[in-house]
Amino acid sequence: MYKIKGSCLIGQSGGPTAVINSTAAGLILESLKNKNIIENTFFAANGIKGIFSENFYDMSKEDLNELKLLKNTPSSAFGSCRYKLENFHVNDKDYKIILNVFKKYNIKYFFYIGGNDSMDTCLKISDYMKICNYECRIIGVPKTIDNDLYLTDHSPGFASAAKYIITSCMELYYETNVYDTKMITIIEIMGRNTGWLTASTQLARKYNAGPDLIYLPEIIFDVDKFVVDVKKIFDKNSKCIIAVSEGIKNLKDEYISTYFSNKNTNIKDPFGHLQMGGVGNVLKQILKNKLGIEKIRVIEFNLLQRCAAHCTSKLDVDEAYILGKKAVQHAINGKNNVMIGLERTNEQKYKSKIKFFPLNLVANHEKKIPLEWMINNNEQYNDKFINYIEPLITSNNKIINKNGLPRFSILKKVKIKKI
Amino acid sequence: MYKIKGSCLIGQSGGPTAVINSTAAGLILESLKNKNIIENTFFAANGIKGIFSENFYDMSKEDLNELKLLKNTPSSAFGSCRYKLENFHVNDKDYKIILNVFKKYNIKYFFYIGGNDSMDTCLKISDYMKICNYECRIIGVPKTIDNDLYLTDHSPGFASAAKYIITSCMELYYETNVYDTKMITIIEIMGRNTGWLTASTQLARKYNAGPDLIYLPEIIFDVDKFVVDVKKIFDKNSKCIIAVSEGIKNLKDEYISTYFSNKNTNIKDPFGHLQMGGVGNVLKQILKNKLGIEKIRVIEFNLLQRCAAHCTSKLDVDEAYILGKKAVQHAINGKNNVMIGLERTNEQKYKSKIKFFPLNLVANHEKKIPLEWMINNNEQYNDKFINYIEPLITSNNKIINKNGLPRFSILKKVKIKKI
Repeated sequence: MYKIKGSCLIGQSGGPTAVINSTAAGLILESLKNKNIIENTFFAANGIKGIFSENFYDMSKEDLNELKLLKNTPSSAFGSCRYKLENFHVNDKDYKIILNVFKKYNIKYFFYIGGNDSMDTCLKISDYMKICNYECRIIGVPKTIDNDLYLTDHSPGFASAAKYIITSCMELYYETNVYDTKMITIIEIMGRNTGWLTASTQLARKYNAGPDLIYLPEIIFDVDKFVVDVKKIFDKNSKCIIAVSEGIKNLKDEYISTYFSNKNTNIKDPFGHLQMGGVGNVLKQILKNKLGIEKIRVIEFNLLQRCAAHCTSKLDVDEAYILGKKAVQHAINGKNNVMIGLERTNEQKYKSKIKFFPLNLVANHEKKIPLEWMINNNEQYNDKFINYIEPLITSNNKIINKNGLPRFSILKKVKIKKI
Repeated sequence: MYKIKGSCLIGQSGGPTAVINSTAAGLILESLKNKNIIENTFFAANGIKGIFSENFYDMSKEDLNELKLLKNTPSSAFGSCRYKLENFHVNDKDYKIILNVFKKYNIKYFFYIGGNDSMDTCLKISDYMKICNYECRIIGVPKTIDNDLYLTDHSPGFASAAKYIITSCMELYYETNVYDTKMITIIEIMGRNTGWLTASTQLARKYNAGPDLIYLPEIIFDVDKFVVDVKKIFDKNSKCIIAVSEGIKNLKDEYISTYFSNKNTNIKDPFGHLQMGGVGNVLKQILKNKLGIEKIRVIEFNLLQRCAAHCTSKLDVDEAYILGKKAVQHAINGKNNVMIGLERTNEQKYKSKIKFFPLNLVANHEKKIPLEWMINNNEQYNDKFINYIEPLITSNNKIINKNGLPRFSILKKVKIKKI
């Protein structure tokens, strides 16, 4: 494939992860390396929103060392956004702006780091550019702690979040067994529609330090059965640790986190203020009401689970970087309208290779945990799931420190002059 | 001082820390080493409660390697308790049992790892034994994440909790600056009466990744001023990060966490269910009511801050161990009725030495942050406080891993046969 000369634009979108900046580093550094082809390397402020406002940072102005430090810097260094493009057949206003900006700044390479929604953005922009005969190579680069991106074996960000969650669960297991008093611990974990992160806590069970009960959004949540499950364990051990995805739903497809705002439930609502917390606090109230248990701790990993750069998987950091780097190399060589991802080539001893997936097959799909990988709460763990996740979290990333604290990247963020 | 032959009993009490087991390891391993003097090394299950029930674990039955792994195992491996002994002049029931058990098992060395309350327990037992002419060497060994133990320069457990909190604050700083939307983040940190942990977040400011506002229990909390402080920063930056100790109080000495249960406040209480959360959720509600800000995230470090073995200070782990080890050595050589602790001998380049403090000077006191170490929220940080804390958190402890997850100690916990 022939090479196009022009500028490169990169953006980050959706919720951050501990390694999304590692992907950014791979993209930026590889783009800067190819100055004979890529004239300028720009980073859009706050994802696609930065295109509308022409807020671009000039990557050539950054210190190379600081760009390398992005490998260990959590969150989206250049800002993110949640912005859904309309169908351009319905409303092409946004698209016209994007096309105009791309033309003005001679953007010939566009890389967008994100999840499902971002792949949808990539696809739509890509389709629109084709219709308008504007040549631009567009590649989506995956990131999501939820691991719900379709086709790729896994997504950068997932393994590090899982490693942090499993480690913290093990620590909490020890912590909650300190007193000889009766206690229930509910650990609330991110995952609106898929339970990859919560399911990962099975791995802590392998070391006898895992939750007693695990609840995923993929399995319909039955409140009555939940109460029975907890009671059985609590009666036996005086303790019970529950790991639960924020997005569990009942048979009617209603989020359990909105349980007390549902007037049809026969449990009396003693407060009805759901802004106070999510599913963990709802389950706490259910157990209080139904079993009269007083001491119930709710632990929310909250934002910590997606920014814990101090507890990342080295494999994850490296794969995130490589995907960025390879995306640029392949775009230069002609790849377009695809998401770059990973295929596992060896199950026994983990090996993977770069693979490209058509954007239209990825966008707006959601990868749930396969049925045969599920556990029921009588099992310790599911071997297939463990074989999948274990190699992803095994390596420890050594973070760059200064005086015992993480030394995160310090960027100049020089904005380009608007044309 | 002459050496007494007899058995050794160790106990852990109060809230756990990430390094309390390191102290236990120091005590156990040193005690086992001195078999010519110390006939048996017992560990009481759940602190002093294990004395009442004669539930002792025999340390000679444990694998030495697993005992060493206690250095990296969070929480109180042999259980803890919260039990306050009455004054024995009022009621000596408990004391009679303790004396009887000590006699029965020939306990001549008693080490109790804990905070203020545990030092009170040590003191009372020690005084009672003297009155009864039962010879037993009693040493309290400090631990507390709160760092509120009197006389010792600092307490094992504090530095590791601080390191975890500062690191997480820095990560959260990056995380919360991702979107260009308006947002307030409230970080709730442990500390009922002292704000050492919350004050530590100043150190994150040194790297421009700290909270905008810091509130400690040592300073009276003024709700109106708080609202003004937040508004000023929020209006300017569209963001505001607040670090707050759970135990802040108003002028009337009332906990802010109980604010909405106080009928005298003129802010309407929209829910009044304080079991749902602590001070973070109260501040959130105040800001919602007073400023109408919608997006407010409350992050509670909760139990994570005292069990995060994966993010400990090596100095802290080592000092915890040494204090245990030295306590045994000195008890054998005659030390009694004291708490072992640390004195800083060099401020410029951190150095410290072991020092002993009379139990009656330590028990029931609380070490607050000195006035001249305080910050007001206009300063970046207080140099004196930074000089104090920085050397404590600088070193990184390398935790023993297995397949990328912490390899915590696995103990046999063989109970001795009751006599």
